[in-house]
Amino acid sequence: MTGRIAVVGLGPGDPGHLTPRASAALADATDLVGYAPYLARVPTCPTQRRHPSDNRAESERARFAAHLAADGRSVALVSSGDPGVFAMASTLFEAIEAGASDWRTLDIEIIPGISAMCAAAARIGAPLGHDFCAISLSDNLKPWEVVARRLAGAARAGFVIALYNPRSRARPWQLGAAFDLLRPILPAPTPVAFATAVTTPEERVHITDLGQADPALADMRTLVLIGTREMRLIERPAASPWLYAPRRSSAA
Amino acid sequence: MTGRIAVVGLGPGDPGHLTPRASAALADATDLVGYAPYLARVPTCPTQRRHPSDNRAESERARFAAHLAADGRSVALVSSGDPGVFAMASTLFEAIEAGASDWRTLDIEIIPGISAMCAAAARIGAPLGHDFCAISLSDNLKPWEVVARRLAGAARAGFVIALYNPRSRARPWQLGAAFDLLRPILPAPTPVAFATAVTTPEERVHITDLGQADPALADMRTLVLIGTREMRLIERPAASPWLYAPRRSSAA
Repeated sequence: MTGRIAVVGLGPGDPGHLTPRASAALADATDLVGYAPYLARVPTCPTQRRHPSDNRAESERARFAAHLAADGRSVALVSSGDPGVFAMASTLFEAIEAGASDWRTLDIEIIPGISAMCAAAARIGAPLGHDFCAISLSDNLKPWEVVARRLAGAARAGFVIALYNPRSRARPWQLGAAFDLLRPILPAPTPVAFATAVTTPEERVHITDLGQADPALADMRTLVLIGTREMRLIERPAASPWLYAPRRSSAA
Repeated sequence: MTGRIAVVGLGPGDPGHLTPRASAALADATDLVGYAPYLARVPTCPTQRRHPSDNRAESERARFAAHLAADGRSVALVSSGDPGVFAMASTLFEAIEAGASDWRTLDIEIIPGISAMCAAAARIGAPLGHDFCAISLSDNLKPWEVVARRLAGAARAGFVIALYNPRSRARPWQLGAAFDLLRPILPAPTPVAFATAVTTPEERVHITDLGQADPALADMRTLVLIGTREMRLIERPAASPWLYAPRRSSAA
């Protein structure tokens, strides 16, 4: 088949964090497919077709991209952040595996982007400087028991925890439940950071601790980072502190 | 103080994955500081001073960058991949915290880069598509017991595991020990991927399974990914298979 699909990571928001490879793939596409607010970040071009879709429609969007490519089109399937981290790359491969056998001959390229956790970490200091994990707090695609077991396991093993999809209107209680689950495991002064819409004009970063962490500080654009007892705060005059994980670790 | 330090993520290697923000910070610096092979990736400019250093000299390099900035210079401290992931951002903050109090007033910016795990994942398919963790296998900065506990905890909780620093001449046995430790926990067909020097002319990607994984396939430029029993391989005619983690998870 002659069609192609580039799964493009747009990064956190600011165009300064969009890679040249991603920009080129967006410019070269005949068709742009993605969640409407992400597509809105891509410069318009009169010769391209744009196919914005709803947030919940990931599987349909991936199948649609495969159909377009099977018709010989060159598709850019856009994701925020990195497409491989809780985003469209897995969704596309689910569609390819379940779809027509000749979809396996499509030319597919995954183009990495600056992930939300790396962008958030950069604004906070260096909270991912030692072993860490990333957990999606959404229980749309896995039972809450699995989320809970992973949270507890990660905290007991001394991982910094990056929480994706911490809170939305449809999932209002999970982040509070996660904090409640972690409070008997981690000391109350364990740092917690809320990083919302980083690199955009709406950026908000708030550093607190597990004892006081308020789930209401998170929304759909927030990455929540839960630290370890080894993390350090560097206070600064007239500026917010830097939070970082030392490279050295003596015990979990 | 008027000096500044930009900690710049160069990404995995190919300049197509270097962000415009990172390029601009490199061009604006008066001084470039970093491990010599990483500095060699930055275009030369006759008005800039270059300060290449040895691989093991991270702490000295960070202090040197702070001294230069305290003298009013504009320093780009370069890292491969993302500077916040097992790289120079934490090292710099360690130096700042331990250093002169006026170093806290330096203008510091962490500029994220495409991390090695995201770049490797993109070449393999979408192996980071569900919950995952990143562990540095180096026991230079933490006891092996901590590494072992984190590996076992992550595997039992169902995380995909990205191993940084899997193997070097000075640390030849750790990756084999990690596989041996995981074999009683994860089934032998669990996918394992070795991704070396991705996006460079020396790129090599090898997908195997835990039963057969050979530590000799890894070197200092390799990221090793250990999957879960839920991961899927999509076989393709005349091409290597795609490996991906489905978004849906039924149990850890």
